[in-house]
Amino acid sequence: MHSIRAAASLYSVSKNTVAEAYERLVAMGYLESRRGSGFYVTKRYQAPSPQRSHQLAQAIDTVSLLREQLVQDYAVRIGDGRPPETWMEGFNLRKAARLVKDYDDVSINNGYGNPWGFSPLRDRIAHLLHDRGVLSGPSDILLTHGANHAMDLVARQLLQPGDVALVDSPGYYPLFGKLKFSHIKLVGVRRMIDGPDTDDLEDKIKTYKPKVFFTQSLAHNPTGGGLTLPVAHRILKLADAYGMYVVEDDAFADVLAPNSPRLAMLDQLERVIYIGTFSKTLSASLRVGYVTANRAFVRALCDLKMVTLVTTSDFVERVVCGLIDSGQYMRHLRVLRQNISESTAKAVNILKRLGLEFPYGASGGGYYLWAQMRNIDEAVLAKQASDAGIFLAPGSLFFPDREATPSYPALRINVAYASDTRFVDFMERFIAAPMK
Amino acid sequence: MHSIRAAASLYSVSKNTVAEAYERLVAMGYLESRRGSGFYVTKRYQAPSPQRSHQLAQAIDTVSLLREQLVQDYAVRIGDGRPPETWMEGFNLRKAARLVKDYDDVSINNGYGNPWGFSPLRDRIAHLLHDRGVLSGPSDILLTHGANHAMDLVARQLLQPGDVALVDSPGYYPLFGKLKFSHIKLVGVRRMIDGPDTDDLEDKIKTYKPKVFFTQSLAHNPTGGGLTLPVAHRILKLADAYGMYVVEDDAFADVLAPNSPRLAMLDQLERVIYIGTFSKTLSASLRVGYVTANRAFVRALCDLKMVTLVTTSDFVERVVCGLIDSGQYMRHLRVLRQNISESTAKAVNILKRLGLEFPYGASGGGYYLWAQMRNIDEAVLAKQASDAGIFLAPGSLFFPDREATPSYPALRINVAYASDTRFVDFMERFIAAPMK
Repeated sequence: MHSIRAAASLYSVSKNTVAEAYERLVAMGYLESRRGSGFYVTKRYQAPSPQRSHQLAQAIDTVSLLREQLVQDYAVRIGDGRPPETWMEGFNLRKAARLVKDYDDVSINNGYGNPWGFSPLRDRIAHLLHDRGVLSGPSDILLTHGANHAMDLVARQLLQPGDVALVDSPGYYPLFGKLKFSHIKLVGVRRMIDGPDTDDLEDKIKTYKPKVFFTQSLAHNPTGGGLTLPVAHRILKLADAYGMYVVEDDAFADVLAPNSPRLAMLDQLERVIYIGTFSKTLSASLRVGYVTANRAFVRALCDLKMVTLVTTSDFVERVVCGLIDSGQYMRHLRVLRQNISESTAKAVNILKRLGLEFPYGASGGGYYLWAQMRNIDEAVLAKQASDAGIFLAPGSLFFPDREATPSYPALRINVAYASDTRFVDFMERFIAAPMK
Repeated sequence: MHSIRAAASLYSVSKNTVAEAYERLVAMGYLESRRGSGFYVTKRYQAPSPQRSHQLAQAIDTVSLLREQLVQDYAVRIGDGRPPETWMEGFNLRKAARLVKDYDDVSINNGYGNPWGFSPLRDRIAHLLHDRGVLSGPSDILLTHGANHAMDLVARQLLQPGDVALVDSPGYYPLFGKLKFSHIKLVGVRRMIDGPDTDDLEDKIKTYKPKVFFTQSLAHNPTGGGLTLPVAHRILKLADAYGMYVVEDDAFADVLAPNSPRLAMLDQLERVIYIGTFSKTLSASLRVGYVTANRAFVRALCDLKMVTLVTTSDFVERVVCGLIDSGQYMRHLRVLRQNISESTAKAVNILKRLGLEFPYGASGGGYYLWAQMRNIDEAVLAKQASDAGIFLAPGSLFFPDREATPSYPALRINVAYASDTRFVDFMERFIAAPMK
């Protein structure tokens, strides 16, 4: 605890007030006074110190895997969803905070701001989208607390408990957790090297009559795979024919070629709900993302955003806008792109040397590679890696249902970490003698 | 649009690139080029300029009222939920952003941070709670994107479509919207001058067997009313007897006396789920709030937060923590308290002179007064006020069901605005000749 004097100064109150408060807390058992030493929080109220859990066996469900990712206590983070700090060093958010300019539409201090989100940032995003050939105006772009918030809004707007949603298989596991929580039945659509398997998609549509298919077209998480234009075209024809929405989550758009094949570009937001975020390419600590769709649908999402969270943070949205307008974000993206391409090349070399294969290709442009292994038990591997302080993401975690798990075990590899010698050494030892 | 030269510099690309992009957008019909003048966004893609809607009749539903509040185009904002900018001038968030310090636990740039929220801020909140006699440790405090996010999490965790929830009547209307969206049946518990009517509460519990009662104990929105200890005690006895949770939303806690009677203080979080926020007393543009409850329940909420939004913004949570640690927040609260008490006294005088009455008392300590009128049609009043640029919040908006609407019309008055002469003059004219 602060000393009485320090606390009095910190909270701008008299020392008597602090002394009284401390005494009250001692009386309540919250504090204890140690003679000559000061006041201490009693044991039972102390926050448990973060412990290395090493319970990757539990990580079989979404919440646990999310927790593993958020807990920062693995030395080597091969299974991580994010790149290392050093990749983001182009930004110093402390400095960026100075960019919270007085844009001229609303003052910064107080209010809830615009329910759609900070309007100059929506304008900047509209420009980014036009570069990708997605012609959405600022008035149809809704800012969210990240892509996950956008997906949550879409799911809550479209789906009722018991409904079926199609998802990529393998696919983005935080989405699975979200949908399962809302009692949505997940049906996986097999992922191929050129995108979703459209024959499988058609079968599943016919069988389940789903309202929506959630997919990632580019730098797909977890496979790193992409999409071709003919596959995109066929997906949209099916969506049209069966009256189904397609949610396209494009988290890596800002580091990918603007003319990459996107569903939203072909369809121009008739059936496609398009989601973006600054979490993967700028900072996850800001929680800024967006969603755009046809006007009626995105208006309904805005109403839902208001009803559930009132609005998003005008303050951080100004920070992001300031980073774009100052040119810092674009400069940062150039460096990030180079880091990704160099690390991917290095990772592919190393993993090939270890005998791993890349059924989804080896140049997704994002952070992920899907590395397939033979004759290795994923769970045993992950457990032993965890004991060695290495966080791995076994492939089976990314399948929406157990039956769809493929015959070959695999790992989702974060390219930024794959050349860590502790990982490489561990893998060499494990492959030489895989204790089961 | 920016000139080609300006855009090239802004996005750090060559002028050729910009010229090409502009040409492409012209070709797509998004831009038009005016000779000698530059490039302009074509009409059909321009954001509609915000228009004064004057459709207060529509504001009968929650979403519309929320929208009215968020749209900044009324000159006089008597019905607003927030105080004016000037009350928040103690803060300059642009400067506050400098306070985003390198607290020593995690670096600021990149990651998702702790799923519970920025840990030093949870520690500061634990201290605020202890001042209120609520003994919750930092490890049981979950940070949220404001109080509404906390209520949304609680509702999603506890309730299924078709369930009944008890709410204050009149009560906090954004909560009603949230629950109605999720197909929860709302049942109002009559609000008295000393808190919820416990006889009515018992009847409703017996009839509907609800899992939860959402209430605001202090500076109640919309009545400004409070709670007495015997009423608090009886509510908790009923909650115990019938196995019901009570959600206590304490948005104004930081400007109220720490020893005010609170459900969470009596119950110590056995049955009470306690929600706080910095939106009313610091800034709504940060979106920082919190929830605490018994350990098992708050852990479930943390899992739900992860599954739905991954986490909250580490960045803004550092800003709030910096404002507390620098002493600025405490100094600001002293000024805010004084503004509230002076404005309330002034508002009460004026409204009494107009013949209005205060069935819930006249000193709630927050921003609201419930001013009751006789022989006045709320809807007519609100419509005419709206035409005169005055935003009013008619009492009937705050009732969860129509049957419960009281016999006397009323207004929720924001004490900060009540002495605006445009409002006072309008009311004098209206009362003299209430056109129907």
